[in-house]
Amino acid sequence: MIIILQPSATREERESLLADLKTKGYGVHLSEGVERTIVGVIGTPERDKENLIERYEALPCVERVVPILKPYKLVGRAFKPEGTVINVRGVQIGGSALCIMAGPCTVESAEMIVETARHVKKCGAHILRGGAYKPSTSPYSFHGMGEAGLKLLAEARDETGLPVITEVMDTRDVETVAQYADIFQIGTRNMANYSLLREVGQARKPVMLKRGWASTIEEWMQAAEYIVSQGNYEVILCERGIRTFETYTRNTFDLNAIPAAQELSHLPVFADPSHATGKRSLVKAVSMGAVAAGAHGLILETHPSPEMAIKDGPQSLSPAQFEELMLAIAPVAEVVGKQMAQPAQVF
Amino acid sequence: MIIILQPSATREERESLLADLKTKGYGVHLSEGVERTIVGVIGTPERDKENLIERYEALPCVERVVPILKPYKLVGRAFKPEGTVINVRGVQIGGSALCIMAGPCTVESAEMIVETARHVKKCGAHILRGGAYKPSTSPYSFHGMGEAGLKLLAEARDETGLPVITEVMDTRDVETVAQYADIFQIGTRNMANYSLLREVGQARKPVMLKRGWASTIEEWMQAAEYIVSQGNYEVILCERGIRTFETYTRNTFDLNAIPAAQELSHLPVFADPSHATGKRSLVKAVSMGAVAAGAHGLILETHPSPEMAIKDGPQSLSPAQFEELMLAIAPVAEVVGKQMAQPAQVF
Amino acid sequence: MIIILQPSATREERESLLADLKTKGYGVHLSEGVERTIVGVIGTPERDKENLIERYEALPCVERVVPILKPYKLVGRAFKPEGTVINVRGVQIGGSALCIMAGPCTVESAEMIVETARHVKKCGAHILRGGAYKPSTSPYSFHGMGEAGLKLLAEARDETGLPVITEVMDTRDVETVAQYADIFQIGTRNMANYSLLREVGQARKPVMLKRGWASTIEEWMQAAEYIVSQGNYEVILCERGIRTFETYTRNTFDLNAIPAAQELSHLPVFADPSHATGKRSLVKAVSMGAVAAGAHGLILETHPSPEMAIKDGPQSLSPAQFEELMLAIAPVAEVVGKQMAQPAQVF
Amino acid sequence: MIIILQPSATREERESLLADLKTKGYGVHLSEGVERTIVGVIGTPERDKENLIERYEALPCVERVVPILKPYKLVGRAFKPEGTVINVRGVQIGGSALCIMAGPCTVESAEMIVETARHVKKCGAHILRGGAYKPSTSPYSFHGMGEAGLKLLAEARDETGLPVITEVMDTRDVETVAQYADIFQIGTRNMANYSLLREVGQARKPVMLKRGWASTIEEWMQAAEYIVSQGNYEVILCERGIRTFETYTRNTFDLNAIPAAQELSHLPVFADPSHATGKRSLVKAVSMGAVAAGAHGLILETHPSPEMAIKDGPQSLSPAQFEELMLAIAPVAEVVGKQMAQPAQVF
Repeated sequence: MIIILQPSATREERESLLADLKTKGYGVHLSEGVERTIVGVIGTPERDKENLIERYEALPCVERVVPILKPYKLVGRAFKPEGTVINVRGVQIGGSALCIMAGPCTVESAEMIVETARHVKKCGAHILRGGAYKPSTSPYSFHGMGEAGLKLLAEARDETGLPVITEVMDTRDVETVAQYADIFQIGTRNMANYSLLREVGQARKPVMLKRGWASTIEEWMQAAEYIVSQGNYEVILCERGIRTFETYTRNTFDLNAIPAAQELSHLPVFADPSHATGKRSLVKAVSMGAVAAGAHGLILETHPSPEMAIKDGPQSLSPAQFEELMLAIAPVAEVVGKQMAQPAQVF
Repeated sequence: MIIILQPSATREERESLLADLKTKGYGVHLSEGVERTIVGVIGTPERDKENLIERYEALPCVERVVPILKPYKLVGRAFKPEGTVINVRGVQIGGSALCIMAGPCTVESAEMIVETARHVKKCGAHILRGGAYKPSTSPYSFHGMGEAGLKLLAEARDETGLPVITEVMDTRDVETVAQYADIFQIGTRNMANYSLLREVGQARKPVMLKRGWASTIEEWMQAAEYIVSQGNYEVILCERGIRTFETYTRNTFDLNAIPAAQELSHLPVFADPSHATGKRSLVKAVSMGAVAAGAHGLILETHPSPEMAIKDGPQSLSPAQFEELMLAIAPVAEVVGKQMAQPAQVF
Repeated sequence: MIIILQPSATREERESLLADLKTKGYGVHLSEGVERTIVGVIGTPERDKENLIERYEALPCVERVVPILKPYKLVGRAFKPEGTVINVRGVQIGGSALCIMAGPCTVESAEMIVETARHVKKCGAHILRGGAYKPSTSPYSFHGMGEAGLKLLAEARDETGLPVITEVMDTRDVETVAQYADIFQIGTRNMANYSLLREVGQARKPVMLKRGWASTIEEWMQAAEYIVSQGNYEVILCERGIRTFETYTRNTFDLNAIPAAQELSHLPVFADPSHATGKRSLVKAVSMGAVAAGAHGLILETHPSPEMAIKDGPQSLSPAQFEELMLAIAPVAEVVGKQMAQPAQVF
Repeated sequence: MIIILQPSATREERESLLADLKTKGYGVHLSEGVERTIVGVIGTPERDKENLIERYEALPCVERVVPILKPYKLVGRAFKPEGTVINVRGVQIGGSALCIMAGPCTVESAEMIVETARHVKKCGAHILRGGAYKPSTSPYSFHGMGEAGLKLLAEARDETGLPVITEVMDTRDVETVAQYADIFQIGTRNMANYSLLREVGQARKPVMLKRGWASTIEEWMQAAEYIVSQGNYEVILCERGIRTFETYTRNTFDLNAIPAAQELSHLPVFADPSHATGKRSLVKAVSMGAVAAGAHGLILETHPSPEMAIKDGPQSLSPAQFEELMLAIAPVAEVVGKQMAQPAQVF
């Protein structure tokens, strides 16, 4: 931590600050420049438990405080230089495997979820996605089938062998969801729902953490740190587009975030081109780009008849479009040194 | 709802769409232009329960769908042209009253909360704020005193007669918070936590709903509709700054949102200059601006010694600064036709 | 300037960096922490002519460089603690005067500009605005009357005594505009058009510099420094709203920017509620808020018949609305210690 | 164009609007819904020369106006379904060719530009980039060598046969730049400098138009329309990152913009990973992603010694890094059906 003093700071204020730092046990390095005095604080911990940065910044004699260390540690690349690899019923997530998760936005019925599961499996997908609890901007929209939807997902897994990922939105549902799902999904609206992060951090299932639509890459790392600091190291990061001034697309897919998250963290990094674009016509190109930029996997929305979808129809791929995308993705993966993950071994 | 067809839409696609609309009971108005065919759909409900907009937009023959009615109703100005006025232990919120809520970011001890409560009351504040459950970007920061903090808030209310507002972050805490607080606060990170919105919608206490830092004004209205649609009509909107590219301030205070929310909704609209700026030096000017633009009240952070604050010190006012602000605000209120609200009648 | 070294920096890299700094004549202060080594560089100039920050940041052994001093000086508050006051034909801009500029987006004809000038003067405005060169997003829109429009503005000044402000967009037009106008306006699209900034910096007329719609407050200061560094100290800053994700309004009015610009700079700071909102219904409230937050003046769009305006009709006030706004503004100014500026003394 | 009337619109207002539309020669289609009346206007031109949308929107009886047609035509995909291919001294830009432009941010000396040109040519680049006129946020930074820099670029072309692209920032420099350069570059700050767009639209050289850092994809199309509407059809679009709240990277690379621009327009679409990331460590991954998503080419910053670069060192590739990137890009191009463009035929 470096503390930059105001030009107006008095000798007394400075001495009092230095005394306080020494009392707390920190080393102090004073550097008096022509226009500013700078205090280097040695020994400040990366986990700012005492909120020192804010406290010193609140002093009238302080212009600003510059943190030196990252505010997260366990998810940092330095903590574990080799990448994290997660195994979900035999499907490898991370490392040199490319893993594809696909399925409908929302579980609508037994038929549609099984039909979709069979189709995406045939095309080479590894994991089935499907929503049972759905966040909706409008209170009058459909909010998902709840536990009944979870049961249908589990049935589709039994039918096809595909492990299942589904969103959890409420701390009270974590236990229920854990009974049926193989991977928890934390949606973009809940990236900073710290109660929920702690709750899935105490569960013993992998968690896909979507980036908040208005969260910086480093805030996303801190959200992951919440989960990992509870003891659950199996976190998958997922860039799903951020909110910007652009209106042609539903979100702005931040491609930089893929390699940036990989240089900052050892966790696997996925992309969600469906939400990132909101437009079926752009999903394939963005999927190709994400894989070429190094994503460890994709999560994609597909629907037997997108125009009949209860939600997210405009961004859902038809079965034929999904098949076309899968055929196009494999050679891109190969060029960047990845292989399609092996299928699950459920049975 | 207006449906604009693709130039490439075939006669069959068009007929099939029209038939589908008629089957659903809607009136249809066809307008064939030189380059586009447009379908006016008559009788579409403002609460798009069937998600028709998305479903029709997912059709390959449709270029886009333009909604005509607002996706919220109960919070809309048309539903209740006169403004909502809420009464909290005798303090008027809304209408021509100006209501000031003040206190520390976080309840730290019995002494500090009582001392702060006495001071803000003396300066003319009406309601005591203070956090017992705190969202923190870092998992290693202080997360609040929990129920112990709620008890201290209630004690400070007993001491001073100031009603109490405090944040609730977890659906599981709503009942506990309701036992101690007079007003629930939903923070910016939880504006789209729909489970939580429904839960406070079922409680019978007023709710202050902060705007999400990346939420549009109309999404904010829909979040308020979540609460109101559960039967709780006592919602206070609060603009607390949005996230933009600006880095000099912690957030960007969107002044437009004050009159915009008032033309869209009948609910009272507050401002939070502390979080909107993140800088003590800017709080007074932004407070004056918000009141002059028509805000029904302010929520402000103060601390007996900001540099000792566990959280938000840089944006907390000292007791002297808070007093100065209160003296400056009263004449602004008068100029815009508001009077300081009457104090609470707790005893 | 503080240079934070990579944990991986070798002894040789560090020595080579220190030698380079010393060769350049800088003092060096080395601080070796537990996890990072930090180099304090003493004597670095506030005007980074050699681009040292970027150059050192490009070194592989450097993690990042933290600048200590602001990248602007002449416009900084420290350079001239009292505020700048500009005199335009007897109208005071800055200090304790509140100055109102008003008029149509675009000069459309002799009648309309004279009629508007007479009306705004009668209501108490001090300066006439009107566009002769207009930026339009579409190449097919009206681009202004050019020099003919400038002549009409000058005629309206002759008729009413109101000094004139108008936009200049092209370095080649600066000389022509200077012949007719009293104040140059640099629009938001040109805040970073450095050729144009230098050109008006060499002219001897006041310049209103609108903030770029995607420019930070400190980039705005640097744009002002471009003008001032050419010798023209008469710069008026104007916050006109920034681009964000919000779509209900045309821009987001950043109220923080008013006091922030005033704490950073000695230049007068205006607000443009017409562009900031894009909606006539919000202009009055935002004007009141801007003045209460300390703005030195407003620039407003009015039109004899907004629905007939060639441009910006939806955000233009009718004559009656402008009169109402002027009546409401005066008492707000008084409350914050400002007086309406005296009228111009042209004759 | 569809006009949605206010619920409060009177019969007289409606009749007057309809009469006005008919007088202007438009067909009118009235649709009276339960809560709103909607006017379909038939025959409205895609080039809204009369600014009808704004004018009708300014009417008190109008709630909003929904445009149906795009505000650009000549650059639209419908106008020319096959993609535009541009030939610069034998180098193909657009179509199935992948074209790489590379070189330093700024021309610094004869040696460095020739050395760089030789290196990038050896690695397979097709076009040499280099700045002679440089936009700098600070007035005290280096602003480029001007015409002397242009001469050095031309010499480097003579030496190596690589055509040259360079930025033009001032309408007064267009003629001079045209004497030396093969392609004009319009930088992000000037995307909405309409005088400059018109000027290069009248020149007969290809133009690379970078997307404005706060411009939507459709505003970018309109900027291109400015150039094309002057008769210059050889425009290359370039996504270079937009400004968002993210601070880890210099800009946010909007990958969606690559396929989106290609579905909207027939013009070639490039990517600029150097500016999009601002970080050398991310350039390769983003380059791979852009090509896989369908970009027709890349423009990249390289420097013989990035740490000695006058500008943009942190985002410039070293010679070895550029070579590595070129080796990695070729197989990605192949997978998406593109071939490296043929080298120029200057001699």
